[in-house]
Amino acid sequence: MKLYFAPGACSMGIHVILEEIGKPYELAPVALKEGAQHKPEFQAVNPKSKVPALELDGEGRALTEWPAIALYLAGSNPEANLMPRDPAAQARALEAIDYVTGTIHPNAFTRQFRPGNFSVREEDHPQVIEQAQQNAEKFFNLVEKNWAGDTWVLPEGYSVADAALFFVEYWQAKRVGKPLPPKLDRHLKAMLERPAVKRVLEQEGMPA
Amino acid sequence: MKLYFAPGACSMGIHVILEEIGKPYELAPVALKEGAQHKPEFQAVNPKSKVPALELDGEGRALTEWPAIALYLAGSNPEANLMPRDPAAQARALEAIDYVTGTIHPNAFTRQFRPGNFSVREEDHPQVIEQAQQNAEKFFNLVEKNWAGDTWVLPEGYSVADAALFFVEYWQAKRVGKPLPPKLDRHLKAMLERPAVKRVLEQEGMPA
Repeated sequence: MKLYFAPGACSMGIHVILEEIGKPYELAPVALKEGAQHKPEFQAVNPKSKVPALELDGEGRALTEWPAIALYLAGSNPEANLMPRDPAAQARALEAIDYVTGTIHPNAFTRQFRPGNFSVREEDHPQVIEQAQQNAEKFFNLVEKNWAGDTWVLPEGYSVADAALFFVEYWQAKRVGKPLPPKLDRHLKAMLERPAVKRVLEQEGMPA
Repeated sequence: MKLYFAPGACSMGIHVILEEIGKPYELAPVALKEGAQHKPEFQAVNPKSKVPALELDGEGRALTEWPAIALYLAGSNPEANLMPRDPAAQARALEAIDYVTGTIHPNAFTRQFRPGNFSVREEDHPQVIEQAQQNAEKFFNLVEKNWAGDTWVLPEGYSVADAALFFVEYWQAKRVGKPLPPKLDRHLKAMLERPAVKRVLEQEGMPA
C-alpha cells in the first residue's frame, strides 16, 4: 500500500490510521503548493487531484475520499480495533467523520486557507476568512455540545473517527492558533500523546 | 424510523433507499424555504439544521450525514442487497457516495442554488453560478470517464451508491436542465424506471 499525502493536510488523519495499524506501507509526498496534484503522473493515480489517495496492492486505481479510505483500512484490519462492530455505533463513527470531512474541513478551513474559492474578488478575502473562522467556532461548539464519548469520540472507544477529528483540531490549535472548546482541547491533547500520532507528526515534519 | 426530508433535496436519495428496503417508516417534511430547519423543534432532532436526518427507533438523537444514513440502512437490512459484502467493493461504494455528497453536491449544486454562500456581493452571483455549472460538467465527466460498472455504479450491481448519484443527476437534468454524459444519462433513465424511485418522486411531488 502507498499513501499519497501532503504534510499537514487532511491526509495526516489517514497517516495516523496507518500508523495505528502498524503494517508496512509506503509514503508518497505530493507537492500541492507546486501544483503536483494537477500533473499527469498524479492524475493517473487520482484524477480528482486530491490527497489522501491510497494505492492498494494489486489494484490499478487508488482509493480516494477520506471516509472511504478510513473505513476500508478499519474493515480490512479488524485486529486493530479502529471501528466498533455494532452497525449503529459504526453509523455514529461515519457520522462524526462526515461532519469533519464534509462540513468542518470545507466550510471552516478550506474557506480560510483558500478564500479565492469562495469569493470572486481579492478584496473580499478578509471577510471570507472572518466568516470561515466564525464557522469553525460554531462547528467545534456543536461537536463539543453533542459529545457522546469519554476521552474519544465514540463511547465504544478509540476509532477512525478520532483520526478525523484530530486533523481539524490540529489545524485550529496549531495552524490557525485559536482555542478549542474544553472537551475537544482534551481530545487533541490525548491524540498528541498517542505514539502513532507522534510518529506521523515527526514523519511529516509538523510541530508536535 | 422517521425520515426528515425536503422535497427534491438530497434527502431524496435516502428516501429511495427506504423505498428499496420496503419496510414501514414515517416521512416528516421540513420546510427549508420557510426556515423550519433553524427552529427549536427541528434543532432538537438535528442541531446541524440539515436534511436528511433519520430518527431511529429507541434512540433520542437522529442519525445525520447522507453517507452514514445510507450505510446504516444498507448494513441493518442486508436482505435488501444494497451494499456489496467485499470490503474493497464497499470502499468503492463509499468512495462514489462521498464524491457525490462531498464534492458534486456542494461545489456544483449548493454553489448555484445558494450563490450567497460563495460570494460576498450579490453582483458576483452570476459568475459564481457560471463557475458552479462548469464544475458540474467537470465532475460528471470525471464520473463518466471512470465508470467501472455496467448499468449501475458498481460492477457488483445496484447499491446505495446509485441512490447518491441519482439525486445529483436528477438535479442536473430536471432542475438545472442541462445534459448528462451518456453513461450517466443512461443511469438516470434506469433509476427513473425503478418502482422505488417512481414512488419517491410521487410522494415528494417531483416531476418524473
